[in-house]
Amino acid sequence: MSFLDFRYRFKDSDIDLISFGELLVDLITNEEEALLSEAEQFSRFFGGSAGNVAVNSKRLGANTRILTRIGKDSFGDFLLNVLKRENINTETIQLDKKRKTPLVFVNKTSKTPAWLAYRDADKYIEFNNDVEKIVNKTKVVYLTTFILSQNPSRKTALKVIDLINKDEEKSLAFDPCFRPVLWPKEDDGKKLVKEVISKADFIKPSLDDAEYLFGPDTPQNYIDKYLQVGANIVILTMGEDGVLVSDGKEKMRLKVYSKKVVDVTGAGDSFWAGFICGILDGRKVKDAVKLGNAAAAFKIRGVGALSPVPDKKYLLKYIEEQEASQ
Amino acid sequence: MSFLDFRYRFKDSDIDLISFGELLVDLITNEEEALLSEAEQFSRFFGGSAGNVAVNSKRLGANTRILTRIGKDSFGDFLLNVLKRENINTETIQLDKKRKTPLVFVNKTSKTPAWLAYRDADKYIEFNNDVEKIVNKTKVVYLTTFILSQNPSRKTALKVIDLINKDEEKSLAFDPCFRPVLWPKEDDGKKLVKEVISKADFIKPSLDDAEYLFGPDTPQNYIDKYLQVGANIVILTMGEDGVLVSDGKEKMRLKVYSKKVVDVTGAGDSFWAGFICGILDGRKVKDAVKLGNAAAAFKIRGVGALSPVPDKKYLLKYIEEQEASQ
Repeated sequence: MSFLDFRYRFKDSDIDLISFGELLVDLITNEEEALLSEAEQFSRFFGGSAGNVAVNSKRLGANTRILTRIGKDSFGDFLLNVLKRENINTETIQLDKKRKTPLVFVNKTSKTPAWLAYRDADKYIEFNNDVEKIVNKTKVVYLTTFILSQNPSRKTALKVIDLINKDEEKSLAFDPCFRPVLWPKEDDGKKLVKEVISKADFIKPSLDDAEYLFGPDTPQNYIDKYLQVGANIVILTMGEDGVLVSDGKEKMRLKVYSKKVVDVTGAGDSFWAGFICGILDGRKVKDAVKLGNAAAAFKIRGVGALSPVPDKKYLLKYIEEQEASQ
Repeated sequence: MSFLDFRYRFKDSDIDLISFGELLVDLITNEEEALLSEAEQFSRFFGGSAGNVAVNSKRLGANTRILTRIGKDSFGDFLLNVLKRENINTETIQLDKKRKTPLVFVNKTSKTPAWLAYRDADKYIEFNNDVEKIVNKTKVVYLTTFILSQNPSRKTALKVIDLINKDEEKSLAFDPCFRPVLWPKEDDGKKLVKEVISKADFIKPSLDDAEYLFGPDTPQNYIDKYLQVGANIVILTMGEDGVLVSDGKEKMRLKVYSKKVVDVTGAGDSFWAGFICGILDGRKVKDAVKLGNAAAAFKIRGVGALSPVPDKKYLLKYIEEQEASQ
């Protein structure tokens, strides 16, 4: 059987997904194409890959928790209020009295955006009994690279990975988004990201991610390089050129459903939410990828990482129509 | 002779004033009276007490340097560009490759604004040969409490204070703006601020500053308390109630020149710039206070910490007219 037809099965668990990574405030320039050093006006948004995956997967019906650390401050209050509005249980969010909620400034551009991260509480996610308990109760952990880049959060992430790897009925979904500027030492960062890739069930790099890790190359070669460092299933997203999926034995290309782009912020996170929810449902891997594609298609039509994702029934119908017309 | 008629004399020096403290980006809410946790739009301004005092004193004719540390990043570029436009020599600004330019979020309100500081490079101002050289070449050092609150900048500040104290022909102007939230330990902070007060030639607390340090009391009692901890000349600013000045032997109240308030951000920094420039000119202490009052009067009529301060000639003429009409 092709891996694309494989359906993952999970034990009955209290929690479907732990979204483990950064929850932060995005401050996006109002001026189009302005340099960050010149922009005068900023708009505040809910952000961070783990935050976006948590909200989108919850909207698609998953029982999601978010494992992160933010400051006990005004920006932390804002993020908690958004999560409560989305009916997400926030008990697993660590609140730091001494350190601040992280921020990322981003410039609005049609090219690759410039960004500047103000990190603080997010570097200090603690491993403790509560973390161990919820990890033991989940089916899937989604993990970001941002959180791996600094200790003590890195140590916590490595312990969570070990817990997942010990249990054959749990899956690790890893977003291998390596950016040298976030790491104390670039080479150590690359090495660790490759190590975690080998421990994950699914990785979803973009072409940018692949270039940061391996240098310039072709999509086909990137797939091979991820497999060489030990990846299990690689989902390479290539913007409007679609998605290339491989398990090492087969490669398959899937088309994107929409080329109408308003804002790509958080498109990768929407894909992850759709894909993971598909896997959690027991759908075939290829159908989970389609659900990821559909969630991303809706995302890029709206502004902000949390532009409305429709419910799963609607997404499934949309996929059917799109497949019929292709 | 009354201390109010005293004129300070300084040796000929290369530099008039070193403004030593925080240079940072203010991000002020666009919405009026919005909580920081609810505000959606922010405007970016040049800010930080040391930055404001540097720009305003330079506009009033002083040869000013600014001693601070910011990140080698987009926000640092913005601050450097403003200083260059103001023709301020930026050689004494330390640029940090690893740490970020500090930020302060502030809400726009007619009450006492809420704020949230993201500190980083500003905590790491180094004492080195260059710092020692410029301190030895200056007449006055203006020092903020913000920079005293965290090491290693605190250690650098204490060394600079020692250099100034060793030379009878130099003066230390200290802004005793104690805010517990910025200090690792509140009691240690209060103790150190009182110690530095005893080493300064001039301090200019506001009523808020006095309450944070001594608890609720009357202006007259505040003056006595500052003198008891060893202050030399105290200038207590009381908003529209004017300024109370004392050296321990005499007390004198001076009226403010303008009650027309648009925005008080940076009013204290404008006062400091006017006052220090008056002292540097060899004017009587009371005339330097008047120059401070006049600079603040122009400041509060405009928005932003750097709303245009007119040139010194104009300010002096304005003082004459105001005094004649009182």
